[in-house]
Amino acid sequence: MFKTIDIRLMHPEFRGHFPALRDKSYFNYGGQGTLSQLALDAIVQAYEQIQQMGPFSLAANHWVMEQADLTRQALAVELGVDGRSLSLTEDVTVGCNIFLWGLPWQTGDHLLISDAEHPGVVAAVQELMRRHQVEVSVFSTGADVLARIERQLQPNTRLVVMSHILWNTGQILPLAEINRLCHRQNTLVLVDAAQSVGQIPLALEEWDVDGYAFTGHKWLCGPEGLGGLYVNPRIREQVQPTFVGWRGIQPKLGRPWQPDGRRYEVATSAFPLMAGLRAALDLQRTWGDGRSRYQRILHLSQSLSDRLQKFSQIKLISNPQPATGLVCFQVDSAYSHAEIVQKLEEQRIFTRTLANPDCIRACLHYFSSESEIEQLVTALKVLIS
Amino acid sequence: MFKTIDIRLMHPEFRGHFPALRDKSYFNYGGQGTLSQLALDAIVQAYEQIQQMGPFSLAANHWVMEQADLTRQALAVELGVDGRSLSLTEDVTVGCNIFLWGLPWQTGDHLLISDAEHPGVVAAVQELMRRHQVEVSVFSTGADVLARIERQLQPNTRLVVMSHILWNTGQILPLAEINRLCHRQNTLVLVDAAQSVGQIPLALEEWDVDGYAFTGHKWLCGPEGLGGLYVNPRIREQVQPTFVGWRGIQPKLGRPWQPDGRRYEVATSAFPLMAGLRAALDLQRTWGDGRSRYQRILHLSQSLSDRLQKFSQIKLISNPQPATGLVCFQVDSAYSHAEIVQKLEEQRIFTRTLANPDCIRACLHYFSSESEIEQLVTALKVLIS
Repeated sequence: MFKTIDIRLMHPEFRGHFPALRDKSYFNYGGQGTLSQLALDAIVQAYEQIQQMGPFSLAANHWVMEQADLTRQALAVELGVDGRSLSLTEDVTVGCNIFLWGLPWQTGDHLLISDAEHPGVVAAVQELMRRHQVEVSVFSTGADVLARIERQLQPNTRLVVMSHILWNTGQILPLAEINRLCHRQNTLVLVDAAQSVGQIPLALEEWDVDGYAFTGHKWLCGPEGLGGLYVNPRIREQVQPTFVGWRGIQPKLGRPWQPDGRRYEVATSAFPLMAGLRAALDLQRTWGDGRSRYQRILHLSQSLSDRLQKFSQIKLISNPQPATGLVCFQVDSAYSHAEIVQKLEEQRIFTRTLANPDCIRACLHYFSSESEIEQLVTALKVLIS
Repeated sequence: MFKTIDIRLMHPEFRGHFPALRDKSYFNYGGQGTLSQLALDAIVQAYEQIQQMGPFSLAANHWVMEQADLTRQALAVELGVDGRSLSLTEDVTVGCNIFLWGLPWQTGDHLLISDAEHPGVVAAVQELMRRHQVEVSVFSTGADVLARIERQLQPNTRLVVMSHILWNTGQILPLAEINRLCHRQNTLVLVDAAQSVGQIPLALEEWDVDGYAFTGHKWLCGPEGLGGLYVNPRIREQVQPTFVGWRGIQPKLGRPWQPDGRRYEVATSAFPLMAGLRAALDLQRTWGDGRSRYQRILHLSQSLSDRLQKFSQIKLISNPQPATGLVCFQVDSAYSHAEIVQKLEEQRIFTRTLANPDCIRACLHYFSSESEIEQLVTALKVLIS
């Protein structure tokens, strides 16, 4: 297996699929992945196809629904679920909102959320709290997360909200164990999967996941504006559609809902993006399977971590033996982290700051290169000295 | 003015902007408009630009927010409002849902909805009714609509939901008068503007509109998946964001909301579409102003209505002196309406059926042609005989 990967690394062709990589050292896959020319071409072809068929025609309307089915099915393979349990959404946050607002909240219900969630999701939970008088408490991530959650679960805890991979440290939370723990007392678990889908091998059905909101535009390298939500069919009737439109209802009946994940989809979307996302999935499969891609991510992530650790002015926030492609670090220099990120970007090296903890994040993908790592380390060295 | 229009009609160049029109007689602008090559090119350029800048970079993130501002401003001109009171949404239905779920519903509140609303919006209202025990009643459109609404308003009527132009008959509801009537007793009015934006001249501020949900992909001929919502600043604090994400909150504060219409926007969207929609707006402006475009729509709509009326087997559902580009008719023949639409599509003539009333709808846009009308009428003649 490694031999195959090594051979591929000798070939610059794979990186050549991504126009963005021509002149960059790119480390922001956790923000947005690079879009391949193949994915963009597929999007353009879809637009042309729709215009050719007639943008609103029996043929195009049928084709678009078929594109949606194919896309749910392709994503289902990535997630280890049945495609009928997936809904296509605009982004991760919309997926989280569908699940959050869909539950039958009662005054006094309790929601437990991790201390490392995205501000957008936190704000949604705050609005939920305000409207439904839901009690919210926060659990600390870090070591012993399972025990921490267990201590904070209450008999009225209806939902735990957490990321699968924490965006600010790269920590993987033990999802299957957390599900087991929570399900014992009928607490559901909603997962922000922004950093996990496309990065680590997934088996949601095996892990008995309740809700899993993700996007296609980060680690899957699809176009921005298309993601998905998995809702376990076991709890489908507990999670009611909130924003409702023609895609979620049974044609010609008005109600009831579509029998599957389509019930959470609303109305007209940027349908051509679906072809782009599938092209992105097809391309990543030509590189290798999910396990080899993840192994490669770990290898590169370890490589960058090792090199950063040699600098006394750099402190790793992420694990020195990384479990993901997220490498987070603090730099002790004359410059703020924001200034460093700005100066790196001027050299076509793309990282980002995070606010909490205050650090810089560099993401390694399976097709990241040692030469990119070299560029980043060299540039940091200059900025530190 | 008419002379200018006539000269333009001599030039086939304008229709040449739309690849879909090369081989079609297209009458489905009320379903989806045709996308110009200029709009598609702008979308592709935006994708390329983002990849060139770095898909998640300080530069691209700034550029994307600027694109959103420019798009809100461009749409604001069409609507006669301040761009800061607009929110970009995925589609009309999402816009309606934002407004519907944002109000502080109390058990026993009353909602009045027209009898001609889209099934998606009706389903959203039904779910609202179920969750909040809102009473819902339906008013009949048709003649004397203002008097009908007045009779059905109750002291607890919190909201009237209606389309500006009815999708099934082309009737324009007297929006300014309805607003005046409803505001007298503090009832708000939410408008489904799917058929009005891009078709008739609009002056929302002048008409004291409360909520106006629209899409860019029908009469504006922008790409599918991008629309907007106008919320009158006067009532902004009454309409709370429901689906919440990073775009709606103040950066680094978590809460409170953005001070303007951005508060209803959620998270990552298909940002490149914004350039496409603006290109569509630019193109329509080169044809003529909103008033001349509307005049031309009326002229063509009248032309088709006149010709259809000559057939004893065809009954017009829309007004014989149309106020919009929607021409709706029933055909008495051996074929069902669905079969007729299918047979027309086989001849590259694109219309659609509607369920209630059971009819066929043909939409005329300002760049529709007499030759398209001729094609449709000739084909219908064959099917009838």
